[in-house]
Amino acid sequence: MADADEYGAQVAKQGSLVRQLKKDGAEPEKIKAEVDKLKTMKSELEKLVKAQSASEPQMNRTSFDQMLVRKFFVVPSFEIHGGVAGLFDLGPPACGLKANILSMWREHFVLQENMLEMDCTNLTPHNVLKTSGHVDRFTDLMVKDEVTGVCARADKLLEDAIDHLIDNNPTMPQSEKDEHLLVQRQADAYKPEEIDVLLKKYEVKSPEGNPFGASFPFNLMFKTTIGPEGTSDAYLRPETAQGLFVNFKRLVEYNAGKLPFAAAQIGLGFRNEISPKGGLLRVREFCMAEIEHFCDPNDKLYPRFKLVKDKVLTLFSADNQLSTGKTDQMTIGDAVSKKLVDNETLGFFLARTQIFCERIGMDPARIRFRQHLKTEMAHYACDCWDLEVKTSYGWMECAGHADRSAYDLTVHAKATKTDLVATKMLSKPQTIEIAKIKLNRKQLGMVFKAEQRAVANAIDDLAQSWANFEPFAAKLEADGKAEIAGFEVTKDMFTYEKKSKTIHEIKYTPSVIEPSFGIGRILYSLLEHSFDVRENDEQRTFLKFKPVVAPIKVAVLALQKDNQFEPIISDLKASLMDLNLSSKVDDSTASLGKRYARSDELGIPFAITVDFDTVSSSTVTMRDRDSMTQIRAKINDIVGMLKLLCTEKMLWADCVKKYGLVAGADDEEGGEKKPVGKTFIQSTGRGRFSRPTVV
Amino acid sequence: MADADEYGAQVAKQGSLVRQLKKDGAEPEKIKAEVDKLKTMKSELEKLVKAQSASEPQMNRTSFDQMLVRKFFVVPSFEIHGGVAGLFDLGPPACGLKANILSMWREHFVLQENMLEMDCTNLTPHNVLKTSGHVDRFTDLMVKDEVTGVCARADKLLEDAIDHLIDNNPTMPQSEKDEHLLVQRQADAYKPEEIDVLLKKYEVKSPEGNPFGASFPFNLMFKTTIGPEGTSDAYLRPETAQGLFVNFKRLVEYNAGKLPFAAAQIGLGFRNEISPKGGLLRVREFCMAEIEHFCDPNDKLYPRFKLVKDKVLTLFSADNQLSTGKTDQMTIGDAVSKKLVDNETLGFFLARTQIFCERIGMDPARIRFRQHLKTEMAHYACDCWDLEVKTSYGWMECAGHADRSAYDLTVHAKATKTDLVATKMLSKPQTIEIAKIKLNRKQLGMVFKAEQRAVANAIDDLAQSWANFEPFAAKLEADGKAEIAGFEVTKDMFTYEKKSKTIHEIKYTPSVIEPSFGIGRILYSLLEHSFDVRENDEQRTFLKFKPVVAPIKVAVLALQKDNQFEPIISDLKASLMDLNLSSKVDDSTASLGKRYARSDELGIPFAITVDFDTVSSSTVTMRDRDSMTQIRAKINDIVGMLKLLCTEKMLWADCVKKYGLVAGADDEEGGEKKPVGKTFIQSTGRGRFSRPTVV
Repeated sequence: MADADEYGAQVAKQGSLVRQLKKDGAEPEKIKAEVDKLKTMKSELEKLVKAQSASEPQMNRTSFDQMLVRKFFVVPSFEIHGGVAGLFDLGPPACGLKANILSMWREHFVLQENMLEMDCTNLTPHNVLKTSGHVDRFTDLMVKDEVTGVCARADKLLEDAIDHLIDNNPTMPQSEKDEHLLVQRQADAYKPEEIDVLLKKYEVKSPEGNPFGASFPFNLMFKTTIGPEGTSDAYLRPETAQGLFVNFKRLVEYNAGKLPFAAAQIGLGFRNEISPKGGLLRVREFCMAEIEHFCDPNDKLYPRFKLVKDKVLTLFSADNQLSTGKTDQMTIGDAVSKKLVDNETLGFFLARTQIFCERIGMDPARIRFRQHLKTEMAHYACDCWDLEVKTSYGWMECAGHADRSAYDLTVHAKATKTDLVATKMLSKPQTIEIAKIKLNRKQLGMVFKAEQRAVANAIDDLAQSWANFEPFAAKLEADGKAEIAGFEVTKDMFTYEKKSKTIHEIKYTPSVIEPSFGIGRILYSLLEHSFDVRENDEQRTFLKFKPVVAPIKVAVLALQKDNQFEPIISDLKASLMDLNLSSKVDDSTASLGKRYARSDELGIPFAITVDFDTVSSSTVTMRDRDSMTQIRAKINDIVGMLKLLCTEKMLWADCVKKYGLVAGADDEEGGEKKPVGKTFIQSTGRGRFSRPTVV
Repeated sequence: MADADEYGAQVAKQGSLVRQLKKDGAEPEKIKAEVDKLKTMKSELEKLVKAQSASEPQMNRTSFDQMLVRKFFVVPSFEIHGGVAGLFDLGPPACGLKANILSMWREHFVLQENMLEMDCTNLTPHNVLKTSGHVDRFTDLMVKDEVTGVCARADKLLEDAIDHLIDNNPTMPQSEKDEHLLVQRQADAYKPEEIDVLLKKYEVKSPEGNPFGASFPFNLMFKTTIGPEGTSDAYLRPETAQGLFVNFKRLVEYNAGKLPFAAAQIGLGFRNEISPKGGLLRVREFCMAEIEHFCDPNDKLYPRFKLVKDKVLTLFSADNQLSTGKTDQMTIGDAVSKKLVDNETLGFFLARTQIFCERIGMDPARIRFRQHLKTEMAHYACDCWDLEVKTSYGWMECAGHADRSAYDLTVHAKATKTDLVATKMLSKPQTIEIAKIKLNRKQLGMVFKAEQRAVANAIDDLAQSWANFEPFAAKLEADGKAEIAGFEVTKDMFTYEKKSKTIHEIKYTPSVIEPSFGIGRILYSLLEHSFDVRENDEQRTFLKFKPVVAPIKVAVLALQKDNQFEPIISDLKASLMDLNLSSKVDDSTASLGKRYARSDELGIPFAITVDFDTVSSSTVTMRDRDSMTQIRAKINDIVGMLKLLCTEKMLWADCVKKYGLVAGADDEEGGEKKPVGKTFIQSTGRGRFSRPTVV
């Protein structure tokens, strides 16, 4: 049987070919043939993937999902009121996990790279999102059931209707079939009035048999109005980036006019998904963390790149997606020098994202960077790499890294008539050729009245470069008149001469490199990657969070109910609080083994148990969740070690080396006493200071 | 001249009297007399306050506001697109300040009290806010200018129109005047149809002279719809609390069924203010931090109360507001034992809020707790205290602490038919009297058909307490029929007998004590309290943030431009990063004094300067912002000290004691070299570990 990855590459290549043919406006016959081939290939691939995944060890998602709800990680919002699709609340453990992830993100990116963090509003007025293109292009064509009012995507309905028609008419002549298939292939390209005619022709009805109304573009942004009049349209932002772009002028000033620099923002995004599914993966309100790195389009070097250049990443290049379907293991230094990754700055962020994922505890074997195919990218983008993470749902985009060139600043500058530019001092003065203008203000005023200033400015702007001005001047000489910025000017309105000018600085619109993180998806992936089952006991699941990210650091337990233990536990809790270590006391009457298992389910890395020896010798046992091994030491020593363990300045192996394992201390119920080999080895394999050298 | 505080109390008392008279439905004449008296008193008070504040030293708000924008603390959102009233963005320094405040809030409340923190959605469906009362009662009556579409509050328009009428008719007979004034006093109590008649009668027009349309209730919540159909109404939450109430069942389960416990949430709230003014004080989108403490209504003791009982607070009781107008300095222990503050739990939170405000660096002299007057509170609330902070706008509510009894859980339980209750084990079993019911199901079924279950449940519920059941039974015996839950039942539908029953636990709806913090207002107050001006130099403003809360901890400067200094500065920055200490390098060519002044304006507590001695001896100077004094020490020692200084484990005075001041090192420009006495003394006055013993 063929390898699914390899075959997947062939399918991707075929898809790319089809897109190219459509773009080039190739003959329908030709497109049709390639589309048919693509369809066959896709169904083959599906079979392959199914067969292959059946032979791989699978995470038990049922047991995982149950654990998420039972342990109050994630629950549907407003559950007692019936809930709302696509909205979820984070319960205490996931809320703590998210706070730790965000605090590490802030330290890893904002602090380390001296980024300018901002906090902009979610409410965004119409004109901002009109400018960014979201009002016009963040839409799908929808139709509404005229009886029930239920909506559906028009293109999907048309595609389904044609499939249905062909399936139900096995004797349909090929020529007729081809006609229908041609319509189907263009389903997502029709205008509203075109698709309405087709939906009528194919007699498309709702599942209940009701007619649909006329199609209309449905914008995925949540709309509201600001102020009592109800006339100021606004939206909930679909991304945080726009707040940073519109503040560019102040940001660059705050940075003393110097580039490159990056701005960052952690906040919410909102998208009114049509039919949200897939738990935390496709939700209507989500946390994002975005970076906008502003730099000179002609200089994308990054001084700190040398610190990460040896970091090995799993790269899935556009070429490989269209050929072998295999990923490459490569240092980011090699990838940039081979020009596989476009520039140092982009490469630096890819490496830092990889390091971040590893620091929070994602499985590096389930992380890769996938390059966008040429046909996927916006016309202005120059290179894009998605962080993809493997979960039980397959490979999932969790972050994007896009070099968006000067697009965003350019559109906002144009719409607001504001200079969103940076100034570069030239190392030596340059001489440039300009047109020196002398305006005939009287004439301009007579013709343009209130608009004379706009005309004068347009002429001045053009005159800053002789090369730009010359064609305009030539036309004016030839015709006696010429158009500029929508105005018709005549020869008598100004005189000009060609001049040389020495300049010491130039102004330019910066490029934007944008790493954008979906924190909700990262949280979900981390939960999956942390989910494990004790060997020989499928019922006993646990979450192997790294201590630094674990929402609760310590479980505090008493061997059994006993009044003697209470003051000790309360002092212990106070000492942990003093060190900002979150703890959870389980004083239920369940057996110690059961209480260990419960704390494992919450991903608590360590458990301290107070017993009768504690009363006499002030020592307690400390248990490591992953290895299920224990040591015994003085309370004060244990508390001190915990602080080091939870800030990654010490490893469990160091504790064991120092104090030795407690013999026969393990009274775990169910399952073997064997440590979870993999995690244990992983721990001892790291250095004492496990943070990568770049940090 | 009378004291403004004292006179203010008399005004408050008069206001309370008027509210009571209106509530009691007193005679219009009597109300009128008291309202007139109140008006005269208010205008007197205004004069007094004006006179008094003129004699107090005032903060220069112009200079403060300029500094906020110039240093990119707070700027209007979407400024280049024209902005939106009531929306502001936080620039990098305020964003960092906010993150530090929130992280301290989380540690101070959530971690210390083992609260269950959640992260619920901002989008909230209609039925949740209908249940909470926001859909119906979060409104003002509005009218719309029929030409311009501009809206205004109907009650304010009516009041103004009557003032205008009386002012312009000095010869109006008193009896006629009184009629108008009676209408004016009830302006905020009219129904839409009533106010429409009045607006017509008084010929109310817009400022442009246009007519207004009919009045309508304007809800202050931002409305949107969820899903493509546009039929699921939703709002942006006006507060975070509802998310916690609707999750109560899961929260109590997560807490192993035990009470008391508290849930907490940090998040956004949205209010569509009519005409937002006052900068950060009245905005349309704001950050809140709310706590819902759930407890037994009959047991509001708090074990950790003993840790704060000696904390002295400034309390402004309801009684004092109505008599002396003076605040009292009192320990919270005394306040609770005197029953001035209703219970220990509420008292505990007041004290912790005070400690929190001091920890982040608010001026304790400008903090007080004001009790709500009986006439201010909702009918279900049993005691409320606002944290009020004095700013240049006057005393401003920054947090509320309300004992809301069982209101919130009760309404959600009723609307969703969900039990939102806690279970209390009785220390010894109790015997209670119930009614034992035997239903005649056949008869019930015949009469009520599909609803028979609802009727049976209602009877069963009532039967759980003989005391509740008896009146119902008596009516049934007397009339042969009686009503229950909207159903009319007859004698033949069931039989009953009085019985004793032994119970081991009881179920109850918990009380909610709600400390709710407006983080934006706290941030603004802290900025004002931190704002200071160097003695003898009004131009030289600075922000005296405590090191723990300062967004940037260290300014890194070179004595002058010199290649030798560059590697030292870059190593220094890396060492600071390793310790998570944010720093800002100012490598401009401005004089050192100017660069110190700039870093003072950002509130950076310490500045390290690299000079020629650094090259030879690896020592640098460190300057303290508040005292403007300097020490010199080895780079490594300085970096280590900085970590201690910024985590409040060391004070500047300790550094000075250890290393001595650098003689003549201060080359500050402008102003005297004298330290800012107050701050300096404050520092040395604290213990080495300045955190209060409770922490």
